[in-house]
Amino acid sequence: MKAVRRTAGNKPDLELHDESTPSPGDHDVLVRVHAASLNFRDQVILDGQYGGPTQENGVPLSDGAGEVVAVGERVTRTQVGDRVTASCNPSWIGGPMLAEYHLNSFGISADGWLGEYILVHENAIVHLPDYLSYIEAASLPCAAVTAWTGLNLSSPLQPGQTVLIQGTGGVALFSLQVAKMFGARVLAITSTDEKAETLKALGAESVINYRTFPDWDREILELTNGRGVDKVIDIAGEKTIVKSAASCRIGGEIAQVGFTSGVGGGLPPIDILARSLRVAGTAIGPRINFEALLAAMAQHEMKPVIDRIYPFAEYRDAYQRLASGAHVGKIVIDVAH
Amino acid sequence: MKAVRRTAGNKPDLELHDESTPSPGDHDVLVRVHAASLNFRDQVILDGQYGGPTQENGVPLSDGAGEVVAVGERVTRTQVGDRVTASCNPSWIGGPMLAEYHLNSFGISADGWLGEYILVHENAIVHLPDYLSYIEAASLPCAAVTAWTGLNLSSPLQPGQTVLIQGTGGVALFSLQVAKMFGARVLAITSTDEKAETLKALGAESVINYRTFPDWDREILELTNGRGVDKVIDIAGEKTIVKSAASCRIGGEIAQVGFTSGVGGGLPPIDILARSLRVAGTAIGPRINFEALLAAMAQHEMKPVIDRIYPFAEYRDAYQRLASGAHVGKIVIDVAH
Amino acid sequence: MKAVRRTAGNKPDLELHDESTPSPGDHDVLVRVHAASLNFRDQVILDGQYGGPTQENGVPLSDGAGEVVAVGERVTRTQVGDRVTASCNPSWIGGPMLAEYHLNSFGISADGWLGEYILVHENAIVHLPDYLSYIEAASLPCAAVTAWTGLNLSSPLQPGQTVLIQGTGGVALFSLQVAKMFGARVLAITSTDEKAETLKALGAESVINYRTFPDWDREILELTNGRGVDKVIDIAGEKTIVKSAASCRIGGEIAQVGFTSGVGGGLPPIDILARSLRVAGTAIGPRINFEALLAAMAQHEMKPVIDRIYPFAEYRDAYQRLASGAHVGKIVIDVAH
Amino acid sequence: MKAVRRTAGNKPDLELHDESTPSPGDHDVLVRVHAASLNFRDQVILDGQYGGPTQENGVPLSDGAGEVVAVGERVTRTQVGDRVTASCNPSWIGGPMLAEYHLNSFGISADGWLGEYILVHENAIVHLPDYLSYIEAASLPCAAVTAWTGLNLSSPLQPGQTVLIQGTGGVALFSLQVAKMFGARVLAITSTDEKAETLKALGAESVINYRTFPDWDREILELTNGRGVDKVIDIAGEKTIVKSAASCRIGGEIAQVGFTSGVGGGLPPIDILARSLRVAGTAIGPRINFEALLAAMAQHEMKPVIDRIYPFAEYRDAYQRLASGAHVGKIVIDVAH
Repeated sequence: MKAVRRTAGNKPDLELHDESTPSPGDHDVLVRVHAASLNFRDQVILDGQYGGPTQENGVPLSDGAGEVVAVGERVTRTQVGDRVTASCNPSWIGGPMLAEYHLNSFGISADGWLGEYILVHENAIVHLPDYLSYIEAASLPCAAVTAWTGLNLSSPLQPGQTVLIQGTGGVALFSLQVAKMFGARVLAITSTDEKAETLKALGAESVINYRTFPDWDREILELTNGRGVDKVIDIAGEKTIVKSAASCRIGGEIAQVGFTSGVGGGLPPIDILARSLRVAGTAIGPRINFEALLAAMAQHEMKPVIDRIYPFAEYRDAYQRLASGAHVGKIVIDVAH
Repeated sequence: MKAVRRTAGNKPDLELHDESTPSPGDHDVLVRVHAASLNFRDQVILDGQYGGPTQENGVPLSDGAGEVVAVGERVTRTQVGDRVTASCNPSWIGGPMLAEYHLNSFGISADGWLGEYILVHENAIVHLPDYLSYIEAASLPCAAVTAWTGLNLSSPLQPGQTVLIQGTGGVALFSLQVAKMFGARVLAITSTDEKAETLKALGAESVINYRTFPDWDREILELTNGRGVDKVIDIAGEKTIVKSAASCRIGGEIAQVGFTSGVGGGLPPIDILARSLRVAGTAIGPRINFEALLAAMAQHEMKPVIDRIYPFAEYRDAYQRLASGAHVGKIVIDVAH
Repeated sequence: MKAVRRTAGNKPDLELHDESTPSPGDHDVLVRVHAASLNFRDQVILDGQYGGPTQENGVPLSDGAGEVVAVGERVTRTQVGDRVTASCNPSWIGGPMLAEYHLNSFGISADGWLGEYILVHENAIVHLPDYLSYIEAASLPCAAVTAWTGLNLSSPLQPGQTVLIQGTGGVALFSLQVAKMFGARVLAITSTDEKAETLKALGAESVINYRTFPDWDREILELTNGRGVDKVIDIAGEKTIVKSAASCRIGGEIAQVGFTSGVGGGLPPIDILARSLRVAGTAIGPRINFEALLAAMAQHEMKPVIDRIYPFAEYRDAYQRLASGAHVGKIVIDVAH
Repeated sequence: MKAVRRTAGNKPDLELHDESTPSPGDHDVLVRVHAASLNFRDQVILDGQYGGPTQENGVPLSDGAGEVVAVGERVTRTQVGDRVTASCNPSWIGGPMLAEYHLNSFGISADGWLGEYILVHENAIVHLPDYLSYIEAASLPCAAVTAWTGLNLSSPLQPGQTVLIQGTGGVALFSLQVAKMFGARVLAITSTDEKAETLKALGAESVINYRTFPDWDREILELTNGRGVDKVIDIAGEKTIVKSAASCRIGGEIAQVGFTSGVGGGLPPIDILARSLRVAGTAIGPRINFEALLAAMAQHEMKPVIDRIYPFAEYRDAYQRLASGAHVGKIVIDVAH
């Protein structure tokens, strides 16, 4: 099989290998990969800047989808021929994040999806609804599950609540789409009027161009009659956190799910205290969140926004597209072609 | 009746008044005040630096206890002769903090406890267990309820969990004592070895002198085998928040309940994200938390730590004691003497 | 003003009175009633069969809507001219049900909406969104809030989950409509094919006629691929509870919100244990649930299903319609006409 | 190695086998069993009356403790020489119960602890605190974890709350001891005055002999000033559930954790509705509950109550002791002797 691996040593690079296809252990599932997708953190991992245990020389990408072609002797959750994807951390089925889950994380501490085959423990297997293609399904494991988890992090999202999202990356667009499935109202900030149109087309009620309105928190307050939003999905971190908090109602919540604008900054504790805010971080989420997401998606026939699809051979172009920041939605690699 | 009021106008001062005793409306309870106590925020309110609606010329202090001497026609929750205290916000019986509760808050937007009588809506009434004196009970409404709420803010406290507290002020000592009632383990930081002894005597397992060990978060990690504590009750804010977070386990929680070290500072969002932290603020808590606290206290016969007791006439000395920062536990005014 | 009151003594009857319009106390709001609506329990209360404190000779009905015509001196939450309804228990703003809330419950222990005016404590006031008429708004306080609370009782409802409802009464139809706003899938049972059509028109995916299929739980299992539903809103009680449980998935939930089929019966404890079920009862819900409901309704422009509207003078006919069980949706009295 | 297995076919019996010691797969841990313990359900499983998938001819017992003697190549959570026990369902690390966890449950669908060695997936491994012996640790996995989970099932247990337990079996005594660690007050019912003394010695405040007082729910109400308890750990099921409910406060909770008095009976739905009760069932609990329990036990040096210890060869006597119902606390088999 062909597989792309991070180069050994210090140089952040990728190289294509020809290697033997792995055989499934008792509880493993061998998946013929059809598609894989990229997330912001995949570049960070490649650059060696990602915290936590990283496998040297590993196959990158936490996200993908494909067909089951072989199963271990004791596998009960799936069978050959099933269309599947996988939760990013196989042992994390439900409950809170534990440090031990990091030790087996696709594309980081375990081989990921950028190869023709991948071995997946059966506990990680998530079945695809018929209406989703492999390309579409490959876009979900990290960003869409993060969106689902983030929207329900400190309290459950409800219809009639207002959610603020930031930008047009994968987590942002999924947050928008998932929030709409929950019956919520979505406000957004973004950097261009063109991107604003995309957000509106997906269901955002109002979109603020934060270049035109650097005090975008004031606009958000106006859009909520001075009350503030119920939840912010904060994706940028350093440059947004203070205004994210200022956009919240008393008792409002910030889900910290990204750090695209930097790793510094900080929200004064008095702001958290004075307005009874809840700020929490999440690392994707357990498999049952992924299954809950797919149940909702299937019912609503919600389709992910795909920015561009690259053939397997052009995987470097996919990484460059990610680095450019020009994408709207998910960058997917069509591994089968 | 005699009552102390904030002076009208800009000068932050107090003055003693002789005024008519108020009569209870249909759902009001007239309480003969026996004792009242001070909290950090009472000086901030006096200085006009407290956010939110403040009653001009009001009677200060949110905390007190006394005897019911008259009740309105439709009162059902209490009767003449009952020994009582009151929840700080009468309409906040249960559920989340709402902005409207600030409009009727003893010692801030409504007359408080620094007078011989106080009118309390029956919904705010909390009955005292026999084992508590008025002096002791007067110390509870703000600080002890904040401790209870803070320890259970993002998730419930459980025996076997480890809690970090800061200093020897009212909220800190109550957090220690309440955490012990929950069967938890308590670590603490403080500024002197003498205060450390007081904390240990109350049940803190280990106490770090943060002047001797400015990198106290490393000491906390060592005391938890590198894992970090389950919860931090952060009372200081600006100067502690970053180290509070560094002291937490993955998935750990910070309850932001004070700002004694300043109103600046901030925790980088990446820290919240990378370690799945939960940071939340709370403003005291609902009446049912106060009642739950008293049920626990009565069962464990837990006694509050009283720093000093001042007779009514020396109320200014009580404020000075608060300003000095030298107190360990609560400063109480014996209004009846 | 004209008001209908329960007759004093043992005879369960109603009579029209001419009496003086009440004046608002400090925190009261006088509302000119435009419409009021009936719930299953109103007949039970009239028959003297309802548990808990009932006011003798009181004005019935917990549900209504109207215009604010006068406010007490200290009222801040509303003003003359506001279009409003009220939460059924004025002191229950948030948090769990407490016994004390029963002491002040419109139409039971306090005067209700079947008169030209009603006095409402400002804490109970809920403002109407523009798109709702008084007739429509009057249908909400008991049944729609019960539906909202019941759907989120043991865990929050999420899109993609499946909910089972029973019948075409007020709570059933609101549960259907609210569940749809949450993005959930709704199954239903009912007694006639005609009612089934109404349910489908409101968004129920499948409806079982329980007369044709007395083993309707098997049909529900089939409709969920043998897995069972996530939640049941059990409205009938005695005759449904065992099959409601049999219709649930492992870990599924039953919200017990009614007793229309009787007050006996019972679910064997082994069923609860063996399948990790959660069964819980609820009495309407706090005001913040009502406000959350209205925020969702306003966003989705959800309209209640009104069975029939009776002019004030024909209030007895409204009660008879209720007793007939023939209604689909809410029975409303147009008090202003 | 020697191992006891259920006989194949219909006859409910056990027989001793001499068989080869299994070798650990990649993520498996081989444990030299020192002790194993019995639970009520073990007889039900042997009798073929237990629902769910049961392995034919399997090694019984879900509970045991021992020393790690070999580990698979990829094991990271433990090492040779560790003193360990195991969570009953290896894949259930956190979150809600899922049907799939039943497929791999020690002593039911997978080989259990009644042999000289057991293979355990590393995800199930729980490390023992030093103060606990193997005999003591072997008593915990099913009953003590059930107690912990049950006490926190519908809401977290808090100091000052009152819990009602039933009898002197394993779950009952652990519920008493765990509730004490949470700082709660415990009431109990039992069948003899002698057993009552044991319960009091363990910290029960009051104990009702239900043979002397068949209306024990009235006694419980009196002991709680008419209010009722916050939580009932219902272990008997059929014969207790109605009185368990009658013993609860408004909004109180019943955790259904056993069925020792039969599989019939039932609580009328109106009781659940009228008093806002929450009734829920639980099947043991996830590994993180077991770890939380051990953290609390280690801090409080809580010791399980051991009824009798049988040498391995007398395993049939242990089963007979269980069947007799005469035991107080846990029946343990000393497999190493």
